[in-house]
Amino acid sequence: MTERGLFITFEGGDGSGKTTQSAQLTEWLTGRGRTIVHAREPGGTELGVEVREIVMHRRGYVAPRAEALLYAADRAHNIATVVRPALERGDVVIQDRYLDSSVAYQGAGRVLSTTEVRELSLWATERLLPDLTVLLDLDPAVGRERLDASRTRYDRLEAEELDFHTRVRDAYLALAAAEPKRFLVLDASRPVDELQQSIRDRVSELLS
Amino acid sequence: MTERGLFITFEGGDGSGKTTQSAQLTEWLTGRGRTIVHAREPGGTELGVEVREIVMHRRGYVAPRAEALLYAADRAHNIATVVRPALERGDVVIQDRYLDSSVAYQGAGRVLSTTEVRELSLWATERLLPDLTVLLDLDPAVGRERLDASRTRYDRLEAEELDFHTRVRDAYLALAAAEPKRFLVLDASRPVDELQQSIRDRVSELLS
Repeated sequence: MTERGLFITFEGGDGSGKTTQSAQLTEWLTGRGRTIVHAREPGGTELGVEVREIVMHRRGYVAPRAEALLYAADRAHNIATVVRPALERGDVVIQDRYLDSSVAYQGAGRVLSTTEVRELSLWATERLLPDLTVLLDLDPAVGRERLDASRTRYDRLEAEELDFHTRVRDAYLALAAAEPKRFLVLDASRPVDELQQSIRDRVSELLS
Repeated sequence: MTERGLFITFEGGDGSGKTTQSAQLTEWLTGRGRTIVHAREPGGTELGVEVREIVMHRRGYVAPRAEALLYAADRAHNIATVVRPALERGDVVIQDRYLDSSVAYQGAGRVLSTTEVRELSLWATERLLPDLTVLLDLDPAVGRERLDASRTRYDRLEAEELDFHTRVRDAYLALAAAEPKRFLVLDASRPVDELQQSIRDRVSELLS
């Protein structure tokens, strides 16, 4: 009998600990005999690498809708060729960032409406939502300090960036509040082991 | 005083005479002192060339929604950076194929719904529709003969292709019937000069 596949995404700002928590969860699940597939966007597929190249590394202007559509194309291909086949095999897919990132970052940037960005992602993926989304919530100023522990003061540009990341955080929390069953919101300033235990508890429930 | 910009698209199967009619219209409009901008998709912008490279020249599978999103990204960038600025300057934009092509060809291929493909294009372009769409309507078998005058018989694959192009033609005619004010449907088997005259008559009306 094939076990049920499980789609888990990690969300949160840079420095919130997504990589650490994802690695520890992988280790634990592998120890329980599950096959883990790691996915990521953008650039998690061959086609995605090419798309990422266009969006991130080309000089010159990219129209905002064109950029959103390119990211959505990468997502569509990743879900169709990596994530869905893995879930059908009964694997656990752990993905670093998914549609909530797109919605939170676009919402904070305020170029396109969050509703439109969400609908675009849902169309791209034939409405695939994760079974569990772990949001590692952290004050952006703390996240910044973690990433760059030697710095103590912010210049004007960095202060603006901080304001942006505060809007991203608020957007994430609003998304989590709207879908409490899908989201597990954790205070990322807590000790690593405690956070991991909370994640394992929730994953255990989903697996049983 | 700046003249009003005009957005004209040419649609129709291969061999229907789009290039010839478009060139003659350009010559006529230029003679009347108008500035003409030629646009095309895919690959009409630098970003579009890169997208076209991904869709058309890569080996391996591209998920259907990813492909549709890549074409839509190309379209979004073309409209935002080429077509809209030209229209705002008061130029005439003549484009070889636009959203009606996407809808007609996807509809004939039946992978994605035509409504979805149309909505995707409209989102990408902030709902920019042409002032005039010239549909050069032709029996696909005649179009094929024009393109390849030395061939007299079709093998099985070619017969299937012919069937596909017949569905494309039917889809085009349905689109034209739904928007009779935007479309000018012409029987592309008529003499080149007569067709051009019909196009000029309609463009004159739009310009006056």
